Formats: sequence, structure tokens, C-alpha cells
Amino acid sequence: MVYSRLDVKKVRRYIEDIFQKRGFTETESKDITDVLLMADLYGIESHGIHRMIRYHAAIEEGSIDLNAHPKLVCETPISAVFDAHKTMGQIVSKMGMNLAIEKAKKCGFGIVVMRGASHYGIAGYYAKMAAEQDMIGICMTNTEAIAIPTYGKKAMLGTSPIALCMPADPIDFWFDAATTVVTRGKLEVYGKKEAPLPQGWAADETGADCADASRVLQNIIGKLGGGIFPLGGCSEESGSHKGYGLGIIVELFTAILAGGTTSPHVKNGGNADCSFCFMALDYGICGDKAEIKANMSTLLRELRESPKADGHDRIYTHGEKEMESMRDKLENGIPVNDKTIAELRAIGAQLGLDYDDYFAQ
Amino acid sequence: MVYSRLDVKKVRRYIEDIFQKRGFTETESKDITDVLLMADLYGIESHGIHRMIRYHAAIEEGSIDLNAHPKLVCETPISAVFDAHKTMGQIVSKMGMNLAIEKAKKCGFGIVVMRGASHYGIAGYYAKMAAEQDMIGICMTNTEAIAIPTYGKKAMLGTSPIALCMPADPIDFWFDAATTVVTRGKLEVYGKKEAPLPQGWAADETGADCADASRVLQNIIGKLGGGIFPLGGCSEESGSHKGYGLGIIVELFTAILAGGTTSPHVKNGGNADCSFCFMALDYGICGDKAEIKANMSTLLRELRESPKADGHDRIYTHGEKEMESMRDKLENGIPVNDKTIAELRAIGAQLGLDYDDYFAQ
Repeated sequence: MVYSRLDVKKVRRYIEDIFQKRGFTETESKDITDVLLMADLYGIESHGIHRMIRYHAAIEEGSIDLNAHPKLVCETPISAVFDAHKTMGQIVSKMGMNLAIEKAKKCGFGIVVMRGASHYGIAGYYAKMAAEQDMIGICMTNTEAIAIPTYGKKAMLGTSPIALCMPADPIDFWFDAATTVVTRGKLEVYGKKEAPLPQGWAADETGADCADASRVLQNIIGKLGGGIFPLGGCSEESGSHKGYGLGIIVELFTAILAGGTTSPHVKNGGNADCSFCFMALDYGICGDKAEIKANMSTLLRELRESPKADGHDRIYTHGEKEMESMRDKLENGIPVNDKTIAELRAIGAQLGLDYDDYFAQ
Repeated sequence: MVYSRLDVKKVRRYIEDIFQKRGFTETESKDITDVLLMADLYGIESHGIHRMIRYHAAIEEGSIDLNAHPKLVCETPISAVFDAHKTMGQIVSKMGMNLAIEKAKKCGFGIVVMRGASHYGIAGYYAKMAAEQDMIGICMTNTEAIAIPTYGKKAMLGTSPIALCMPADPIDFWFDAATTVVTRGKLEVYGKKEAPLPQGWAADETGADCADASRVLQNIIGKLGGGIFPLGGCSEESGSHKGYGLGIIVELFTAILAGGTTSPHVKNGGNADCSFCFMALDYGICGDKAEIKANMSTLLRELRESPKADGHDRIYTHGEKEMESMRDKLENGIPVNDKTIAELRAIGAQLGLDYDDYFAQ
């Protein structure tokens, strides 16, 4: 695959215009684009504009509904439950986290859960929204089942990401990780390279460790059994039951609290019928915010400055790599592969936008 | 090591009497004993009466202070921060979780954090307290540093356990796990057996994977470098950065929010100067409790009933093994090793209690 670097501002304008042409308002289009581009800027290509084709298809087939509105199911001063009603994941999610933040400003804590939603991009975007308001932000989503329970052979849980962002200097602590060993995207990369999967990543249809990425992916697509192992790998010896348990916790805070569809029953595709959880905690309820933030910054600095293992020259804290990636991409452009560029060109053409008008020098 | 099965009621009476002889009230003695015995009943020997000798030593040397009282540092309707002032960990922790539950009854959510505390036993005990009030309970603690950051070689984080309990039928979801691959206790077992450590468990003083348990333990004790790997093992390929990040999250919710000592600076021994976090969430804020609990029960049942990997005949959900262990121990007694029995006998003798009076047939 060939990659070209595309200027961030140009990409932003093109993607926003696509969503406006689709019928989203200017604000909605900016919001959706901002979520997608944060993934590309942070170096998480799998969750960025690479997914435009999926959103496009979902809107075309009506599984994302532009005319629907999320419905408030129940509410307390610290909480709210919504049925997202097939609305665009990013729009309803920004609303959800903003409401959690508003509740946290009044009560110290806010939790908003949603069911019936379509994919929302990266969980870390919404966690960061709370950190930008000087709060701890937490976000989780369930997804279609792709992970097998410890000693199982059928995918029953999603990748179950947990994102948490806490303000710190000079760089926020920004954690966004699947509670599986890897995500599907990693398997796809190995499949394309025809490289053997590392041990402890994925299981074949018998539940045994499997190095053949294509076989695992075909089994997942065909629902023939097998899937990705929980964080901790294939056995209790390496802690598989811990990642498996964290996956159940994500399911609890999303589908179970929101009254939504649990991962074994979530459909693939555009409107995946996912459930989300957004939490904001104003850490000022625990004392002086400047002091708490300074203590967090000290801990992170001590970790970064602690002695390195032989053969390694750096210890990262979470969010550092993403900040470095963003600086690079803002300066040098976002790397986009030729397949994605072709897709973007076709989507634009269908909506009366000429890709070359945007990206010509 | 030789194990004897001791009757639970007899053990309970003996341990309670020891704590009363030490100067704790009857209620305090019952509370401490209940926490310790839950570990033994659940099959977590390392955190049960096996630790009596450590508590004994800590009280003797004054690093646990029977005459001190926890001090409320600040409070809101949903939160409280305490300085535990060297009080006995179990007593102050039960108070902490009860306060979080009380706040959750009024507001839907409660969070209580504590600093300056001594070891409190198993985190899962306190999470279960909330579940017994039909709430989600969460509990975390930092500890002395024993885990190295990904690509580090100095222990900087604790084992950073996260416990979460959610009511379900027929068995609650009860999750209590270190966010490291294993705990120190596991290394000690391998050290005693002189068995090689599995790959990805622990690092030597250079930060490299090390199979020699005794060497790792000696390094930890001597603070010579190395330690246990985060959940996910020794490299980013297997997800080490995820366990490492979860460890930072535990540090955030304990030492950072409580204004306490972070793991790199926590001392070993009786009064470890730990920080705790207790959270209770009344899941009724998200809808009908019976329905939510039923959905959780269904998810857990579907996981247990899902197809088993070839060569395995059972998939557990978290809490099942512990319930089975408890049934066995209530019927057949708690297995206690001869070294622990000798310690218990000596502690009793020092306080004027005759072990044989309690355990004679």
C-alpha cells in the first residue's frame, strides 16, 4: 500500500463538506470530522478517515438515520440514559459527554449511558473532552463480539476499550486501550503482510492459539468460532482471566447499564447497535485541583525518568506518543493510503465534490 | 509445607479474641477477622490469616496505631477524603465503603478516598459490601512499588488491584485482580518450589524477562531493580502498556486523589502508608434495578454456557471459583500451613490465649 501525506486543513475541509453534502448541519459536520481527524492525528489510522467508506455505506443503507433524534430514557442530577435511535455516533456521543461534564460541574460526577448507537470513533476523544474542562474523563463502548472468554472458543465480548484522561503537565495522561491483547486492525495488518501472529493474540475455531491471521479473520467474518484473546493472552497463567473480566466490566457500564444489546448480540456494520458510557469526575471534590494535578504530573514524570530496561532508551506515559504524532502530522500531513484516497474521491464524486479541487497545490 | 484444615468457626473465634486482646473493641475485632477470613474462604490464602504475623508485628512496632482516629480532610455530598492516620486498614476501610454506600443511597454515587493507611486485606471485600446493598462496588489500593513500567527496570507501581462487584443471579460478578501479570505471592510459591517462572511474569535487575524467582524476589527486597511485569507482560506486542496504564489509573484514584504517597515512595511493612479508593454506584439511577440485574445475569450465563475451547470443559465468570471455594471451606475447614499455625500459636501465647483451648476437638 502506498501512502501520501495530506494536509490536515485540506482534509478537514473536504471531510466536513462531505458530511454537509450528506445533510448534516455545519456544526454536526465539524464535530464528526473532528473526532475522525483526532484519530489520524494521534496515529490511530484504523479509526480515522479510513472509516469514511463505512459511514458512507451505513448512511446509504439507512442504518445511520440523519433525521432521528436520541431519546432521553431517564435522568437524575448525576446521570442520564439515552436511546441513540441510530443517530450518528460522534454527534450523540459529544452530546453525551457534554451532559456528563455539565452534571459533574454541578454535582462533582456525571454518568451518561446510551444504547442503540452507531460506532463513535475513538473512545479517547470523549475522555479528553472532560480533561479539557479540567476533569477526569472516562469513556467505554461495547462492540460486536470479537473476543473469546478465557478457555472459550466463541467470540462473546467486544474489544471493550476503556479510555481515561486526566489533566497533567506538560502532557495529559491519555489512556485509550482495548481490553483485548490487540484489536482487529492489528490482525488485518498481519494478514496483509502474511506474517505469523505472535503467540497469545488470537484463537482458531477450536480455541487454540493460532498464528494464521487470515484464518482467524475469515473465522470471525464467517462467525465460525475463535477470535481475539483478552488482555493477558490465552491462559490464566498469563492473566487472561483479568482481561476477560475487564471486558465484562465494560459490558456492564455500557450495554447493561444502558439497557442495550450486549456484545454477543451486537450486529456488524454501520449501525452496530452499540452502547456507550461517558463519565466525568471533577477531581476538585477531593481537594485543591492545582495540587492534585501537580501530583499527577510528578508521578508521570517519575515514571518517564525511571531507569530504562537494557536495550531501551525511553519509558512513555500514555498520551506522549499521540502528542508527538500530532505535532508530526500537523507539520507534515496525515499519511493516507491509496485505497482510502480512492474511496474518499469516489464518495466526494457521488456527492458532487471534486477531490482535486481540495487537494490540488 | 504441611496443611491442616481448621474449622472456620474456631478460627474466627481465635482470631477475634487475638484482636480483642490486642485492644480492639469487639466490633472492630469481628470486622478485621471477617475481612481476613473472607480471603481464606475465597481461596486467597496470601491475604488471609497467613498475614496475622505481619499485623502483629506492625502493631508491636507502633506502625499501626490503635489509639489513632482517621481524620476527615474534605467532604461533598458525593465524596470524602480521609487521612487514615495509621489506623488499622480493615476498620477504616469498612468505614470508608459504608460512607460511599451512604452517599450513593442519597446521590446515586459515592467516592471515598484515603491516605496514610495500612494494608486492608483483599480489595474485593469492600467492593462486595456495596453489592450486598444492591449497588456496584469498586475498590482500589496502591501499594509499595513492585511492578516495573513497560521497558523500565525499576519497580515504580504497586500491584494496583482493581475490585468490582455487581449483583447477579445466581452468583454476583466479583472481580478482584492485580493489574500486574501476577502478584508477589505467586513468585514466592515458585521460589519455594524452585520452579522456573513462566515467560512474561517478572524482570531481573536489567529489565529483562527472568525465570529465576529467588533472584527476582531478592532484587525486590534489596531494591536492586527489576520486578513484576504489568498485565500484558514484557512488551507492547503482548499489551504490557495496557496493564502499565491501568496501574497508573489505580494510582490516580488512590494516592493522587487522596493526596497520599505514590507507590514509588510507599514504604514496606505494617504501616505501608497506602491510599485507598472506595466507590459505590446505585445502578438504579440507570433504570429498573431488577431488569438491569437480570440482564447482567443473562450476560454472565451466556458467557459460562458459550462453547469451550478444545481441552477445556468450563468457562468461569468472576466470583464462581470463590463461591465454590467458600462452600468447600465452610464444610471442610480452611487449609492452614504449619508455619502459619506456629505463628498463630505464638501470637496467642504472647497475649495469654492458648491455641489448644480453641482447636482441641
